[in-house]
Amino acid sequence: MADLMSNDMFLAFSTYATIVVLKMMFMAPLTGYFRITGKEDRKKMLQTNPDVERVRSDLNHTCHQNDLENIVPFVVIGLLYAFTGPDLSTALLHFRVFVGSRFIHTVSYLLALPQPSRGLSWVVGIITTFSMAYRVLTTTLFL
Amino acid sequence: MADLMSNDMFLAFSTYATIVVLKMMFMAPLTGYFRITGKEDRKKMLQTNPDVERVRSDLNHTCHQNDLENIVPFVVIGLLYAFTGPDLSTALLHFRVFVGSRFIHTVSYLLALPQPSRGLSWVVGIITTFSMAYRVLTTTLFL
Amino acid sequence: MADLMSNDMFLAFSTYATIVVLKMMFMAPLTGYFRITGKEDRKKMLQTNPDVERVRSDLNHTCHQNDLENIVPFVVIGLLYAFTGPDLSTALLHFRVFVGSRFIHTVSYLLALPQPSRGLSWVVGIITTFSMAYRVLTTTLFL
Repeated sequence: MADLMSNDMFLAFSTYATIVVLKMMFMAPLTGYFRITGKEDRKKMLQTNPDVERVRSDLNHTCHQNDLENIVPFVVIGLLYAFTGPDLSTALLHFRVFVGSRFIHTVSYLLALPQPSRGLSWVVGIITTFSMAYRVLTTTLFL
Repeated sequence: MADLMSNDMFLAFSTYATIVVLKMMFMAPLTGYFRITGKEDRKKMLQTNPDVERVRSDLNHTCHQNDLENIVPFVVIGLLYAFTGPDLSTALLHFRVFVGSRFIHTVSYLLALPQPSRGLSWVVGIITTFSMAYRVLTTTLFL
Repeated sequence: MADLMSNDMFLAFSTYATIVVLKMMFMAPLTGYFRITGKEDRKKMLQTNPDVERVRSDLNHTCHQNDLENIVPFVVIGLLYAFTGPDLSTALLHFRVFVGSRFIHTVSYLLALPQPSRGLSWVVGIITTFSMAYRVLTTTLFL
């Protein structure tokens, strides 16, 4: 244990994993907030256009869901990656790019920025995770 | 490995993490059960009130989803927390309060207890996770 | 760290966990693909039968959601299980059966194979996870 805590790689992983998981947790109150706002609008819209609000509440739900689907693989693969002993600078680059891409993703969701921004940040996060998974698989392959 | 297994802190984390993850897995059959029950009712209600059943199936889905959104952060942050070497009694307090709050949350969902109980248990779980995240960040900060 | 990486058990867990998490990540583009396909059909169906397409998009969403609900417990419990020091052959059996059952589950979803195949693969995955959880609890019990 003391051994792990004196390891820079593990400290870096702990910091970034905690930040990104906390960010994910903040999505829950946000989603709840948008859902309540949506419900107030619902009363007015119910006769006019139920399809629009279904899509909108899907969007909010999707943003949190998307976090869950991307951050869980990052945490699992990132932990295994930290154990394969890569260069500290390479690992920091991976962690920083991933955490940055998730923050941009959430901001572009909430502010409804024009499309390329959200898709791009999602793809960057996926590529970072794949790059770490590639290193894990080539280092540890044991089927 | 043998080192980790002779560590009380890690044993305590393993026990509580396994219990809470098993509890989460039991939500799947429960949700399925309520969904099937809901479908049987659906035939009668389809003409009368499709909005009510959508909200109800949302509730069941939300309960499992809520578990996923709260237990995944607990497991990740709790594991890192166990590695920062806190007092065993403090750590046990965190683990017990969190696991207790999740069980109360699920029971108040399933029995539809009056509102403060569910919201309160959710907030207690969140605060426990934040308290562990605070300790992880102050101990390991390495950006 | 170097200690963990020279341990066959941990190498095996890393490999299987990475494979199954990568599989889960591939569900996101697939779901997106089906959602877009669904939307094109939606224009035709909107007047005729909005209920059918809601159920269908639920199915795709459920497949990814189901992955999240089964693979997250496997990763958490599998990691703790690897630390309890079981026989390498027993652990490999658990990992292989679980990963195999998830692949069969996804294939039977996507190709819409007749029902017993999907339910059976889901049950096999659950039983494997319970078997590992049982070993973790009996080895580490510390309440």
